[in-house]
Amino acid sequence: MSRIYLDWNATAPLRPEARAAMADALDVIGNPSSVHAEGRAAKMLLERAREQLAEALGAAQSDIVFTSGATEAAALALAGRGLACAGIEHDCVRVWCDETLQAGRDGQVAPPDPASATLQLANSETGVIQTLPPGLAISDLTQGFGKIPFAFDWLGIRAGMVSAHKLGGPRGIGALVLAAGEDREALLRGGGQESGRRAGTENLAAIAGFAAAAAAAQRDLAGGMVERLAEMRDHLMDRLEIAEGITMFPGRDSPRLPQTLSILTPGWKGETQVMQMDLAGFAVSAGSACSSGKVRESGVLRAMGVAGQDAGCALRVSFGGTTTREDLDRFADAWLSARARWQGKQGR
Amino acid sequence: MSRIYLDWNATAPLRPEARAAMADALDVIGNPSSVHAEGRAAKMLLERAREQLAEALGAAQSDIVFTSGATEAAALALAGRGLACAGIEHDCVRVWCDETLQAGRDGQVAPPDPASATLQLANSETGVIQTLPPGLAISDLTQGFGKIPFAFDWLGIRAGMVSAHKLGGPRGIGALVLAAGEDREALLRGGGQESGRRAGTENLAAIAGFAAAAAAAQRDLAGGMVERLAEMRDHLMDRLEIAEGITMFPGRDSPRLPQTLSILTPGWKGETQVMQMDLAGFAVSAGSACSSGKVRESGVLRAMGVAGQDAGCALRVSFGGTTTREDLDRFADAWLSARARWQGKQGR
Repeated sequence: MSRIYLDWNATAPLRPEARAAMADALDVIGNPSSVHAEGRAAKMLLERAREQLAEALGAAQSDIVFTSGATEAAALALAGRGLACAGIEHDCVRVWCDETLQAGRDGQVAPPDPASATLQLANSETGVIQTLPPGLAISDLTQGFGKIPFAFDWLGIRAGMVSAHKLGGPRGIGALVLAAGEDREALLRGGGQESGRRAGTENLAAIAGFAAAAAAAQRDLAGGMVERLAEMRDHLMDRLEIAEGITMFPGRDSPRLPQTLSILTPGWKGETQVMQMDLAGFAVSAGSACSSGKVRESGVLRAMGVAGQDAGCALRVSFGGTTTREDLDRFADAWLSARARWQGKQGR
Repeated sequence: MSRIYLDWNATAPLRPEARAAMADALDVIGNPSSVHAEGRAAKMLLERAREQLAEALGAAQSDIVFTSGATEAAALALAGRGLACAGIEHDCVRVWCDETLQAGRDGQVAPPDPASATLQLANSETGVIQTLPPGLAISDLTQGFGKIPFAFDWLGIRAGMVSAHKLGGPRGIGALVLAAGEDREALLRGGGQESGRRAGTENLAAIAGFAAAAAAAQRDLAGGMVERLAEMRDHLMDRLEIAEGITMFPGRDSPRLPQTLSILTPGWKGETQVMQMDLAGFAVSAGSACSSGKVRESGVLRAMGVAGQDAGCALRVSFGGTTTREDLDRFADAWLSARARWQGKQGR
């Protein structure tokens, strides 16, 4: 029986549109900074991809700064600014911020001073979607982009980070999106690329793949993907809930990403669940995939007020457009029987 | 007649070995930080690529920090250190250094205090190869790696930067190589990747492509590539020199990369030459491709003592393993007739 990958929030499978765009771009020999025909062709491809991404983001083309990923975009956006954030943010945001904001048990954060705060659009572990306050300095849009519809220019925020590999684009590429009038001093210097905001030869193939994936994701959204995936998620939640009692779904009272389900079973370690599910043929996660293989209690759940020991007992299921209802049913079967075995051992 | 690409030092065509490795890696679905089977497979691929690159570099596997390119590696290696450098360095090095070192007319630099200096291995415009002094703090190895044989561990330097796309790997990937005992505080933070030295989900496909390209380049070097290309370069130089007088070859009295020729014709703007050659079907360069399409006088040649007006009159021809002697002969024919037309107009 083939394996079922339900860890899309860690990294999503590459979309065929992205793969095709990358294959084409890898054949483009020139450096976009070169003035000869090959260079001009590369430059044209670069700007066409920027236009395509801008359209998917609902932003102006000139406001997009390509980076090597959301982590670099976060450093470019946040380093040295001392913005306020909550503990639900990704580590690559938290590391540059003052963690002075509180999240409610529903995962929601309301920054008192949006102009000096950063707040994610959606959480990677719980899927909780924030209402971004107008004038917000920065938002990590990484987990929301391509999964729920929004237009950057309508969010009323000053800057945002996005990543390709969370929506079916390649790894190693992301962007910082800036509202009109915003600017940043380059972190990587010594070349005039990206309007002086980010030096280094442009990663043309990855940029083309990013743009193609973003366009495909927008088409999916326009075609009703949110509703389809949310219905599948709710079906999964219903099935897991049937097994009476104990298990909870952090964030369920908030608006959530349609394809993310956080499953918390106090006393049953998330790490153990991940390994049991892995052996049963399912790739799921106990939290953020960052921190190189370390599995530990979830900082996100802690920030939502979940007690320390319980925060280590969450499992994250995240999926996408090629996941089927049958995949989720098979997962539910496997998880429910593992849970029954665990309960048996506990004498519960 | 198909075009002839002679701008390999700006960016080299992707090697088939790199393309194949990338195609395979794009199918690997997992995030190397995930603990499930898919994550472990990704981690294994990552470490196999690191091992392959370490072997090509003559370095220890643990000393390689993957970055988004040499520009990021330079920032990671150099920012805040105030090392001394010469004007022949790439902009992404110069921007972090004090330009207090002098280059001779032969392009050679001898730092009085290697431990507080950075010096490139080879120059992108002239191809001049430096004798790196033992104990040198940092060397930009970008233009040398894969073109001339060396082993990092035998260079006696503390750190070095390399880039994939200069040796036939993909763009968007490079590395900082550290001697045993050297370390750097991460520039990109918020994830434990690269032993805590560089956060962000690893660009697996590009890393696999880099390693495959580096291994292929090493095989080329072992198979006599240096001698073959140097012979072709000397043949080209002989042909261009025949047209008596004026034209010079900066760096010709120094050891040089085998596949780079700087051609200086005082009074004949490099920018004009690039455009004429472009129309004739050849992609060549007037200097470094950085600075987004700006063509200006060469800082490298200025640093070697070439007068300001003359430094704007250089043309760079750079090529590689798939270039043929006939390609260079066709270039020589086209350039010589353009030069004759230019001389006619000058009444020379």
